[in-house]
Amino acid sequence: MKRIFMDYASTTKVDAQVLEAMLPYFTTSYGNPSSIHSSGREAHEAVDVSRTRVGHLLHSSDEGIIFTAGGTESDNLAIKGVSYFNKDKRTTSGPHIITSTIEHPGVLQTCKHLESQGFTVKYLTVDKYGIINLEELNQSITKNTFLISIMFANNEIGTIEPIQEIGKIASEHDILFHTDAVQAVGKIPIDVKKLRIDLLALSSHKIYGPKGIGALYVRDCVKLQPIIHGGGHEKGLRSSTLNVPGIVGLGTACQLAEKRMDKDTVQLKKMRDTIIKDILQIEQSFLNGHPTERLANNAHFRFTGIEGESLLLGLDEKGIATSTGSACSSKKLEASHVLTAIGLDPVEAHGSLRVTLGRENTKEEISIVSQAIPEVVGKLRKMSPLWNR
Amino acid sequence: MKRIFMDYASTTKVDAQVLEAMLPYFTTSYGNPSSIHSSGREAHEAVDVSRTRVGHLLHSSDEGIIFTAGGTESDNLAIKGVSYFNKDKRTTSGPHIITSTIEHPGVLQTCKHLESQGFTVKYLTVDKYGIINLEELNQSITKNTFLISIMFANNEIGTIEPIQEIGKIASEHDILFHTDAVQAVGKIPIDVKKLRIDLLALSSHKIYGPKGIGALYVRDCVKLQPIIHGGGHEKGLRSSTLNVPGIVGLGTACQLAEKRMDKDTVQLKKMRDTIIKDILQIEQSFLNGHPTERLANNAHFRFTGIEGESLLLGLDEKGIATSTGSACSSKKLEASHVLTAIGLDPVEAHGSLRVTLGRENTKEEISIVSQAIPEVVGKLRKMSPLWNR
Repeated sequence: MKRIFMDYASTTKVDAQVLEAMLPYFTTSYGNPSSIHSSGREAHEAVDVSRTRVGHLLHSSDEGIIFTAGGTESDNLAIKGVSYFNKDKRTTSGPHIITSTIEHPGVLQTCKHLESQGFTVKYLTVDKYGIINLEELNQSITKNTFLISIMFANNEIGTIEPIQEIGKIASEHDILFHTDAVQAVGKIPIDVKKLRIDLLALSSHKIYGPKGIGALYVRDCVKLQPIIHGGGHEKGLRSSTLNVPGIVGLGTACQLAEKRMDKDTVQLKKMRDTIIKDILQIEQSFLNGHPTERLANNAHFRFTGIEGESLLLGLDEKGIATSTGSACSSKKLEASHVLTAIGLDPVEAHGSLRVTLGRENTKEEISIVSQAIPEVVGKLRKMSPLWNR
Repeated sequence: MKRIFMDYASTTKVDAQVLEAMLPYFTTSYGNPSSIHSSGREAHEAVDVSRTRVGHLLHSSDEGIIFTAGGTESDNLAIKGVSYFNKDKRTTSGPHIITSTIEHPGVLQTCKHLESQGFTVKYLTVDKYGIINLEELNQSITKNTFLISIMFANNEIGTIEPIQEIGKIASEHDILFHTDAVQAVGKIPIDVKKLRIDLLALSSHKIYGPKGIGALYVRDCVKLQPIIHGGGHEKGLRSSTLNVPGIVGLGTACQLAEKRMDKDTVQLKKMRDTIIKDILQIEQSFLNGHPTERLANNAHFRFTGIEGESLLLGLDEKGIATSTGSACSSKKLEASHVLTAIGLDPVEAHGSLRVTLGRENTKEEISIVSQAIPEVVGKLRKMSPLWNR
């Protein structure tokens, strides 16, 4: 059975060009970039080239790119980094962070942890599409607010947040702006300067690069406290021997993403819109997330009367990989915090399915999946006590 | 010019078998191990197999293995993890950690950071060979001591610490014992239970695995606070999508290390002893570190009247990769803290060279290097104002 992978928001296959670029750094140019000898210098140069490539995709100077082990670490470094650095700089009523209710756990759990450390956190609500309210953002700012952390695009429902407006508000109030852009990088053109972003987290394995590598863009002058102390690598912000093959992979993936973005986006949108149109023909089926302000590759449905997990497993039996929510939360029993935040009740939330498309998907695969989903939904509804027709 | 790599303490080439094991996880079995579908389950199973392999090398159950991005992160997670978890549990005179002056920066800088957070840290001195004083360790224990962190073997001079005795002392006082075993794993047989080790940090790229992956062994019942918060991966201790190819690489590297250790050790020792004998024939040359209690692959010299860095560069011109200290510290101007701790003055410390051997080195290479070092030393001494002969 040929497998169809439509879970590209959870991870991606490493692009053949990316892997090819990485291979020499495992077995030939395997030096430690901190070493002075030629093997070390060779590795160091490869890291420099990659840093420039990552910076280029974000329209930033490469100076601002700090390599980490992934998106979650980047989020942690950004938020804890500025929080601990600014801890004592605000008044006694407690340093204040603004984020949203639909952030990735890398942001949410970090904020929860900071609450236990004396920080106060405001979690902005979102509308039924998952978009934050700029009015509420404005009203939530206090004299102690030093950080706003709002994701670029949501990892479950694909909704794109009004980043430009948030950047403007943050900048006008002289508040740092961090964005978890793990799902947006490589899919949406990003200019960190124009968008007035101070800190941006990205992950390699969402853009056809390897797992275990990510980066944090840090605008110059933004001061952070490291979360990993040691030899002082990455300007002292992230000590550890640099993961050279991973970094080369991420650099190459960024370069490819930049080159392919326009063309990929057109194709992904076309396929996404086809599958949305096809699936919404199913009785009592709905689209979660915003109708237009959504990632080009994201289609997120809910179906009355069925369990998303059973639907996922039914599709898996047909060789089709999809998700009920994010990969992080998909093994948990609670309803997704994102779906709850957009107003779904637990039963509705549990009846959801995320289909996320990627470079290797084809029109033929869309047809197969557009046929498979109604079949499995129909079969499950027949057995469902929640389905009364 | 065929290059000779004798800087295996800084990093290693990825073993061909390790790379072969990793490859499918980049492009075929690229699922996210947190996903429920078959691609995810396939990745999850590969992670499980690797966890068992890492555990097996340490004679631990695989349950205790937490995957991280490397040795430094493992050290940080161990030390900060137990420190923050135990922060409020001790008396008002401040929670107390005991470590040594010759630790890796991943431990030392973490301890320095904790000092800024209200912890007190005792840095044990070492003798001229780099071995801690067990008497001093015993005397340093206070009722507030909750953690002893002493490295298994030093990364610069190769000295092996009396781990069994330290484990016994820690256990008798009901104090947690962490060891940075980055240089020891795969070179010395380790049984975490027999040695009464509670926390052990290891790194993949020192044992012919890929960079960017490591592990922390955590004895059951030892409670840690995570340093990276998010989706709750790795029992909540290290959130981030698992680096499946890296983990598979580390698992394979551990399996290989276990199989090859006895034979490799014999060969490495033979080559090490040859090069030590050869080099000590140079006038005014000395061996740093312990004559016998040292890693099988480590030879660390100092030469009167020359700069180690010039020697390194002279050897590099001949295609030979060595180091002046650890890769972490080799780009810094200050004298190595390890060499200072064993009693060398800054001039002596700067006249040092580390030669660390690995699986691919041959007797012929040893002969070439044994000839090259005296040549370069002689040349440098001729130009040296510090050399008066």
